[in-house]
Amino acid sequence: MPATTVVARRGAQPYCHQYDAESLVDVGAALRTGIPRDRLGSVAASLSYEPLTPTAYLDRAAAAHGDRIGVVDGDRRWTYAQLHDRCTRLAGALAPLADGRPVAVLAPNVHELLEANFGVPWAGVPLVAINTRLSANEVGYILEHSRAAVLIHHPVFDDLVDAVLAAADAPPHRVRLGERYEELLNDAEPLHRTPDDEQALLSINYTSGTTGRPKGVMYSHRGAYLQSLSMVGHTGLSPSSVHLWTLPMFHCNGWCFPWAVTAAAATHVCLPKVEPAEVWRLVRTESVTHLEGAPTVLSMIAYASDASPLPAGRTVRVAVGGAPPSPAILRRMDELGFDVTHLYGLTETYGPAMICDWRPEWSFLDVDEQAKLKSRQGVGNMISCAVRVLDPEGRDVPADGATTGQIALRGNNVMLGYLDDPAATAAAAPDGWFRTGDLGVVHPDGYVELRDRSKDVIISGGENIASVEVEQAIMDHPAVLEAAVIAVPDSRWGEVPAAYVTLHDGASVTAAEIIEHVRGRLARFKAPKSVTFGELPKTSTGKVQKYVLREKAWTGHDRRIS
Amino acid sequence: MPATTVVARRGAQPYCHQYDAESLVDVGAALRTGIPRDRLGSVAASLSYEPLTPTAYLDRAAAAHGDRIGVVDGDRRWTYAQLHDRCTRLAGALAPLADGRPVAVLAPNVHELLEANFGVPWAGVPLVAINTRLSANEVGYILEHSRAAVLIHHPVFDDLVDAVLAAADAPPHRVRLGERYEELLNDAEPLHRTPDDEQALLSINYTSGTTGRPKGVMYSHRGAYLQSLSMVGHTGLSPSSVHLWTLPMFHCNGWCFPWAVTAAAATHVCLPKVEPAEVWRLVRTESVTHLEGAPTVLSMIAYASDASPLPAGRTVRVAVGGAPPSPAILRRMDELGFDVTHLYGLTETYGPAMICDWRPEWSFLDVDEQAKLKSRQGVGNMISCAVRVLDPEGRDVPADGATTGQIALRGNNVMLGYLDDPAATAAAAPDGWFRTGDLGVVHPDGYVELRDRSKDVIISGGENIASVEVEQAIMDHPAVLEAAVIAVPDSRWGEVPAAYVTLHDGASVTAAEIIEHVRGRLARFKAPKSVTFGELPKTSTGKVQKYVLREKAWTGHDRRIS
Repeated sequence: MPATTVVARRGAQPYCHQYDAESLVDVGAALRTGIPRDRLGSVAASLSYEPLTPTAYLDRAAAAHGDRIGVVDGDRRWTYAQLHDRCTRLAGALAPLADGRPVAVLAPNVHELLEANFGVPWAGVPLVAINTRLSANEVGYILEHSRAAVLIHHPVFDDLVDAVLAAADAPPHRVRLGERYEELLNDAEPLHRTPDDEQALLSINYTSGTTGRPKGVMYSHRGAYLQSLSMVGHTGLSPSSVHLWTLPMFHCNGWCFPWAVTAAAATHVCLPKVEPAEVWRLVRTESVTHLEGAPTVLSMIAYASDASPLPAGRTVRVAVGGAPPSPAILRRMDELGFDVTHLYGLTETYGPAMICDWRPEWSFLDVDEQAKLKSRQGVGNMISCAVRVLDPEGRDVPADGATTGQIALRGNNVMLGYLDDPAATAAAAPDGWFRTGDLGVVHPDGYVELRDRSKDVIISGGENIASVEVEQAIMDHPAVLEAAVIAVPDSRWGEVPAAYVTLHDGASVTAAEIIEHVRGRLARFKAPKSVTFGELPKTSTGKVQKYVLREKAWTGHDRRIS
Repeated sequence: MPATTVVARRGAQPYCHQYDAESLVDVGAALRTGIPRDRLGSVAASLSYEPLTPTAYLDRAAAAHGDRIGVVDGDRRWTYAQLHDRCTRLAGALAPLADGRPVAVLAPNVHELLEANFGVPWAGVPLVAINTRLSANEVGYILEHSRAAVLIHHPVFDDLVDAVLAAADAPPHRVRLGERYEELLNDAEPLHRTPDDEQALLSINYTSGTTGRPKGVMYSHRGAYLQSLSMVGHTGLSPSSVHLWTLPMFHCNGWCFPWAVTAAAATHVCLPKVEPAEVWRLVRTESVTHLEGAPTVLSMIAYASDASPLPAGRTVRVAVGGAPPSPAILRRMDELGFDVTHLYGLTETYGPAMICDWRPEWSFLDVDEQAKLKSRQGVGNMISCAVRVLDPEGRDVPADGATTGQIALRGNNVMLGYLDDPAATAAAAPDGWFRTGDLGVVHPDGYVELRDRSKDVIISGGENIASVEVEQAIMDHPAVLEAAVIAVPDSRWGEVPAAYVTLHDGASVTAAEIIEHVRGRLARFKAPKSVTFGELPKTSTGKVQKYVLREKAWTGHDRRIS
């Protein structure tokens, strides 16, 4: 089906699918209604059927809240009407440059990246938001693989982009943010294309690719639309909300929050660089109500030098994903007035497909017990199918809180597939259930708890040790800020746990004390055999890169692939 | 397409669409992606596409919150797992009785009517929830017109149902709530049918039919799914919410709240009879957080003899629709701790398609100013297309707060059409925009305010008078509880306004004082020429039946049709 082109109209005219009285659909065709077909009738498909696209949330925000502030970026502010106008002109500028091919963006969380989440789709082409921590080689691969026709980039990446484009066989059009970008918008006619088919490709998000080349995960307009509504529902976003962009927008399209925040007509506060002082300043001056990120963002907030409890009655709702937050951090955040919800998902599931949905009866438990419950990954979100935990034969494990299986997901928030990799797509979902690669258990209340990624499990003397469990025991020590535990080779046991630990500023503890601390909490064989102190290697989204630690430890040894 | 039948499985097995690796869809087919088609690939339609149905929210609630209380009805309580089980067995019991034809329900807000919102669709047939205030003749018409095969009814309607069935040519199976219903459920095998086509018919809701026969408004699974998510987002429902059923579930399927409350895994508190003392008791004992209804529900709560402000820190979120709440009521509700949001919609739009979305900056205005803003109908909800206000030529009126036009709506929450009445469907949406029949203005901030229903406008000496405006002026008088203003024949002016007024208990005021009160607020010609004191005739949903008043006043006179 061709894309519908609607040239943006300023004023009262709405942005809707074109009405076509001739495109009839049968009503109730899928039900044996017992009502004769000719009495059910047909209706124009476009009367009751508007193709879902998350860009429609900006149409609605501009119509309903057009004169309110939609975006804050440093000293600059734009209303939702202005944001809408800029995005339609971005679409108009990009359409001829892209000529139907994807538009890539390499930028921190600035307002232009937010604009790309609407303006690129309205140009009728997919968005490729690139991880800003990648090397020139990796960026080049993504541009080539996605066949991007345009690369929009922030000036901080001038050198990187020079190198990328110099090495490219068919370099994309280069659009530098700043004067060039503003010129393009000023000269452009507004454009507002939306697809007739809501399953059409909206964006391509590349996985971090810890082994081999990154894969291009394809999102649809429909999937992102629904995931956005789910995020609004679970986080309670409203027009009174102020959302701080601590989560990178390039990461799973910011878990669909560029669209979710807009659906609620809340305010976006951009944050190019996530630094503790700046986060605390904005939380206070912009009256932030919502933010998201990896546990590293929590640590940053919790242990910032200028951290202090929010005034009574004020709460910031924080959604955290990427790794289970430790009970110690959850306790600290609670004291500061931050209400933390733990989410779980992957690039392949539009970000969080699961949520540790807070149960009101938990409010009567003590804080330690609450923190333990909160650190679980939880249940499917409102629009997900029920979550499964499967044994290697594809059977559901019992809900006993002990039997481990692989977490499998399904629903409208599962990717369309991997670009140009049907074999990998099929392998990831052999029976229609997407295998996450993460191991977990189901508790009797139905909540799932991650035990480990398959490859992070430590197999010591034939016993499985979940690295996460050991990490949480270590992080319960008051001197510890962060910890990572990996398997290291051992001549007797095959593998044993080794810990890498970062301490709080000014804190001190010995390796022996850490090991003793863990032995007091877990079976002896689960305690680390060594403890190394220092900074942990991390991805741009704050996930600890265990493979970096592992590579060093295993040099010269063979390790199973899993 | 045939409906997919999945026999319900207890345990960890999820309720999902059948996986069919052969049913492939092209990715990005609607976009010129510039990526060769063979690199985009095809995916099984059932990997990333789960047909939308609001019954899936109960699958999710049972999987994620199965052991929590989902339903309270008097002294009885059911968990979400129990509700799911009962609904699948209701489906199993109904499928052979219905044999593919609709199931009608005639019941107040008891738990069985809530169950019908899931169990009837899972039997693979549409739900017809009948207004409990209708006469035997009207109920008989609806059963015949919808070809309902089963009528489930509450014992309070025994006599009515006797009369209906005695007069029917082909009476439906009769299922009386109580022993008979429980027997059916006990004997049934669970069944869980969902349609392959999300546009399939979910329910038929009959309009109140103030002129002529009621029309059967057809809802789709997709429309109800999306409207439910919008209701969750706008009302902030969560697992900690407790929802009191003051809104009749037969009214537009309870604005989709049977599904929305379940999507959030909040608790349903049933309320067979809406009485002030019982509402207040449940608000206090069940810690109610949410309720909805017509303004008459607000009056009932606001002026109940045992009304008293809620404890500090507690708020009940109230969504009100059907008619604009008066500023006087809004002020009173605010004092009591009830946070009122005004919604607007029709049977044809799954209930509220518009919402008076609260803007945070309004919190700094004084209460009277706030009440005035709150009484507007507002803007499209998150999933609606932008709202239009159209002149008779179908052009948008200017956003000047003065020019009147007809409110027109569009989106996935517009009905499939009227059952067996394609002419009426086409007439209601001549250009793809559903004409509501309500007149309104657009304020400069984009918010729409209802002026009147076309037929309620009073044309006096060539001047239009909005009856709503006169009513609000009257209701601002401290002695007045409710007021309705209609046109009555006048030999000099053609029509003049006449007021019908209900006073607060113990209050007194004269007709002359009311007229003088209005003259102090509006242009003289808008003041009523007569005031009649007494009860107002109302529909079962609390809307004043102006046509009843008009019929008396116009006996022996002709009046324009509009």
